[in-house]
Amino acid sequence: MEGLEGPALWRELGQQFRVDSIRCAAAAKSGHPTSGMSGADLMAVLLAKYYRYDFDHPKDPANDRLVFSKGHASTLLYAMYRAAGVISDEELLRYRQFDSILEGHPTPRIPWVDVATGSLGQGLPYGVGMGIAGKRLDKTDMRVWVLLGDSEIAEGSQWEAFEHAAYYELDNIVAIMDINRLGQRGETMHGWDLDSYAKRARAFGWHAIEIDGHDVEAIDQAYGEAIGTDRPVAIVARTIKGKGVKEVEDKLGWHGKALDHPEEAIEELGGIRNITVQVAKPERSGRSFEIERGDPELPRYDVGEEVATRKAYGDALAALGKARGDVVAMDGEVSNSTFAEIFRDAEPQRYFEMFIAEQQMIATAVGVQVTGWRPFASTFAAFISRAYDFVRMSAISRANYCLSGSHAGVSIGEDGPSQMGLEDIAMLRAVHGSTVLHPCDANQTAKLVAKMADTEGISYIRTLRPNTPVIYEADEEFAIGGSRTLREGDDVAIVAAGITVPEALKAADELGADGIEARVIDLYSIKPLDEATIRSLACPIVTVEDHWPEGGLGEAVLSALADAEERPRVVQLAVREMPHSGKPAELLAAAGIDAEHIAEAARQLVGAAVSA
Amino acid sequence: MEGLEGPALWRELGQQFRVDSIRCAAAAKSGHPTSGMSGADLMAVLLAKYYRYDFDHPKDPANDRLVFSKGHASTLLYAMYRAAGVISDEELLRYRQFDSILEGHPTPRIPWVDVATGSLGQGLPYGVGMGIAGKRLDKTDMRVWVLLGDSEIAEGSQWEAFEHAAYYELDNIVAIMDINRLGQRGETMHGWDLDSYAKRARAFGWHAIEIDGHDVEAIDQAYGEAIGTDRPVAIVARTIKGKGVKEVEDKLGWHGKALDHPEEAIEELGGIRNITVQVAKPERSGRSFEIERGDPELPRYDVGEEVATRKAYGDALAALGKARGDVVAMDGEVSNSTFAEIFRDAEPQRYFEMFIAEQQMIATAVGVQVTGWRPFASTFAAFISRAYDFVRMSAISRANYCLSGSHAGVSIGEDGPSQMGLEDIAMLRAVHGSTVLHPCDANQTAKLVAKMADTEGISYIRTLRPNTPVIYEADEEFAIGGSRTLREGDDVAIVAAGITVPEALKAADELGADGIEARVIDLYSIKPLDEATIRSLACPIVTVEDHWPEGGLGEAVLSALADAEERPRVVQLAVREMPHSGKPAELLAAAGIDAEHIAEAARQLVGAAVSA
Repeated sequence: MEGLEGPALWRELGQQFRVDSIRCAAAAKSGHPTSGMSGADLMAVLLAKYYRYDFDHPKDPANDRLVFSKGHASTLLYAMYRAAGVISDEELLRYRQFDSILEGHPTPRIPWVDVATGSLGQGLPYGVGMGIAGKRLDKTDMRVWVLLGDSEIAEGSQWEAFEHAAYYELDNIVAIMDINRLGQRGETMHGWDLDSYAKRARAFGWHAIEIDGHDVEAIDQAYGEAIGTDRPVAIVARTIKGKGVKEVEDKLGWHGKALDHPEEAIEELGGIRNITVQVAKPERSGRSFEIERGDPELPRYDVGEEVATRKAYGDALAALGKARGDVVAMDGEVSNSTFAEIFRDAEPQRYFEMFIAEQQMIATAVGVQVTGWRPFASTFAAFISRAYDFVRMSAISRANYCLSGSHAGVSIGEDGPSQMGLEDIAMLRAVHGSTVLHPCDANQTAKLVAKMADTEGISYIRTLRPNTPVIYEADEEFAIGGSRTLREGDDVAIVAAGITVPEALKAADELGADGIEARVIDLYSIKPLDEATIRSLACPIVTVEDHWPEGGLGEAVLSALADAEERPRVVQLAVREMPHSGKPAELLAAAGIDAEHIAEAARQLVGAAVSA
Repeated sequence: MEGLEGPALWRELGQQFRVDSIRCAAAAKSGHPTSGMSGADLMAVLLAKYYRYDFDHPKDPANDRLVFSKGHASTLLYAMYRAAGVISDEELLRYRQFDSILEGHPTPRIPWVDVATGSLGQGLPYGVGMGIAGKRLDKTDMRVWVLLGDSEIAEGSQWEAFEHAAYYELDNIVAIMDINRLGQRGETMHGWDLDSYAKRARAFGWHAIEIDGHDVEAIDQAYGEAIGTDRPVAIVARTIKGKGVKEVEDKLGWHGKALDHPEEAIEELGGIRNITVQVAKPERSGRSFEIERGDPELPRYDVGEEVATRKAYGDALAALGKARGDVVAMDGEVSNSTFAEIFRDAEPQRYFEMFIAEQQMIATAVGVQVTGWRPFASTFAAFISRAYDFVRMSAISRANYCLSGSHAGVSIGEDGPSQMGLEDIAMLRAVHGSTVLHPCDANQTAKLVAKMADTEGISYIRTLRPNTPVIYEADEEFAIGGSRTLREGDDVAIVAAGITVPEALKAADELGADGIEARVIDLYSIKPLDEATIRSLACPIVTVEDHWPEGGLGEAVLSALADAEERPRVVQLAVREMPHSGKPAELLAAAGIDAEHIAEAARQLVGAAVSA
């Protein structure tokens, strides 16, 4: 096959990708070879002619990015790696084995994969994030190529991506839609009605090109047109699932299965090929500028002042942004509530309005961190639940970014339960490698925001709507994984965070008047948690949180104590009934998490300990 | 104002709604009066002429449904209630008070509200569910009217709704888009470019009508056209936020605030009015048929058979569907994996394919349960995270429905972490009033599926991809909130669920050979949890789950023990490192949750107890 070029090369390369898809799935006895076979020609022309990528420097901001949104077609991606000469045939054939990085769906365990896919409908939103990074932050002439399946276009997140790509005028993004008609269990909504996809894309402000996805010359022409177009481009390609192998071509029942007769199929496709293509590198590498990184001058608040932690978040973020050129921010149309607007007004070039599209907000954060930017994304704590699948997947992507959820808990008051984040601690704790912080005052918030910027993984800060008293000096330091003992006492320990810290302090005062010495611990770092301090407690414990009892601060404390030699009794105060509108104080009382209820729970525990 | 009719009435009624929006926000000193003022004329014409609703029988399937997707415009909804004569002026003015059902955002504490809103972008998906119920299940000529804000159209979930409404040919749905240009913190993406909305809607197969949303005659004409159209209709109405009050009209900075000068504003609007309108009732009430409800003949499996619990889910659901006419099912394009396909093939009229659109799937479940249908929605456990905000909100909606998440945990094997539900227990436990079940065998699954159909709130069943041995007789009963002690023993207790039950039994065998008597508890009901059994344990405990440690079975057990007098040591085995592709047995071992690791943990605990 030496010396092949142009369409002849592309056709052979497409066949090689099909053969390799079949081979590696056959070796694994699982996988989605027919899904790889439909997109093979589309990827052949891309790899051989258009893709500009330095495999030795995968994080180079000048590189094009390729996102396999249809992550189940991983056999095709890995076949491309073999053709690019970066993995061997032996490695390819260890697909899906326990000791291989070539997993069922691509993950960044592979150095050339930027984001994990496999939860459908996520690749394009991530691509939009990468496109924003390329155009607005890195300022390179990179392009983002996203291979989409047709089934996954039903996900609403796709249309958030279409909308934002058009809004941000991302002429560097090409969505390659592999319209093979068949989903996992049957035909898609639109079958081969290419126009239904094209007209939707056009309505959202994109340029759309309809082609036969197995005609390499048409593909070439479409890519050529795409890179010369001044807006995002959707290539709507009619393809055939299982293309090239009669037994499975365009047939139902072959999703996610190795072929029954791989050898005959390979023969039908013309046998094994060993074409290697020299993938073009970007013309110039790196950014044309250096990113400055200094130490932030964090805001300082006076002890006794009343400041909302969400306000301190905004102040601190702006301070970080001033000192560090790598810090970027995005918000879901509530920047005047989360106070991300302070950053926006100070650093408009590094702020991205995501409107009310939380999935795209998280995806943008994930997309821009690929080339080393440090995103801070914010919305109400309650609305992070809208993007939980994106957060979950971004942990598999090994992404590093910061999240802020404001308006946590019943303390928001009159707006009612739809706006109250009451499951956010549970949700974020159950993310692999996450950090979950919940400060109670403004100085603590500022210090933690600065720490988050250097924290690996997904770090989350939960902030409050109402003002709370500043109780820490501006010079105090707060380690992630630490806690603060605010009041000494050995009769009972009250473990609190956020709004329940001032309540706990009031309760300790009340208890003191009764002769009960209550220790008060501010457990501002819920994950990781200060296990040593918690395990050193020898008295009964009251945990108190403005959150459902499940998965929250109380259970985190219980986990820390679970296998300890000494395990004090723990009473968990948390929100147990559905709250409704009312004044913050009324709601804290109704939920049983205000000073009075804390004191009462402590009294009962102490009484029980005394009588025992 | 007696005797007013037609446009003159509608105009006065619109002014009344504005005045009342201002009045109740002024009384509460909070709320979103300007958002109510923009949609006032749209709602005036609807209430006075088109809406058919029996306020005395709100659940009548023949009733029209009105969904305030822009839930923050609740002042307008409550003003409509006053005009309809169902709440008094005094009640209106207790808006947002602790003891009022008129919350900041509407919830079903109000008898005429079907679904809670306030998380934006959810009303239309719920409306699609109601439209499906009306057209395909209840078979009445009801209509669904959804009032949408323009900011919220950025949510991807909207486009899932647009897509499904067109696919299901819902000619009974009218989306009323209140395009007032201004979001919370600034202008929307599209401002007053009505055509940008209309062309998107048309591309998705809807009929779209552009109007001036303050011209009552144009509104009347649009509604008339809408109800005569054979497909879903979007009315794209140009409106002015704060319309009618110069101080706030079309001005930034007035979102979510009571007016500074309410009395002057009311005067500017012509003063307080007390118009009452007689809302038309539907021509005929109820359904034209009775729903049959018998006892299901559940599937039976032989002890020792190897059956996947997901398969038993499908078998049991089909059995339920046969016996009970109220059971409906929907699935996110994976029905051949979740085995919802067994129901689909048996009861195609009561099955709704939701394609890969999990938000719309949950919203459809919520929408159809409004008139008493019992939905079962299924997808992979991992992908329920895509719709977490909908699940969260549906708890506020007091919705009753059943959820199935298949392919839980690392036991799925080669497909890798993107497909493994590892946070679903945490996520679903942290939903108010939820039930979380995780059976280990097929007979248990079938019995629990039948129980779910009569369980209030959101009940979740977590099923497995691989086959597991049938260990229970087909006649055994399993209560929600119960557990099963599978092996007696007093040296150590192993608490497991799902795939870890067979592993725990193997571990108990191994331990028995060493002379250690291990009790094995199948904690199939994780919420509610059998506290009595857990608290009766006097020996050390090993909890073992195919889930992250946070918020899972282990923490549920710890919560049950937290304040007990005796608290045994607990070691929590759970998935602690990011898994990858591999064989199920390899992955269970790598995660430290297989029989060998359980036995080892038990040995150490027993050793520690002996040496202590």
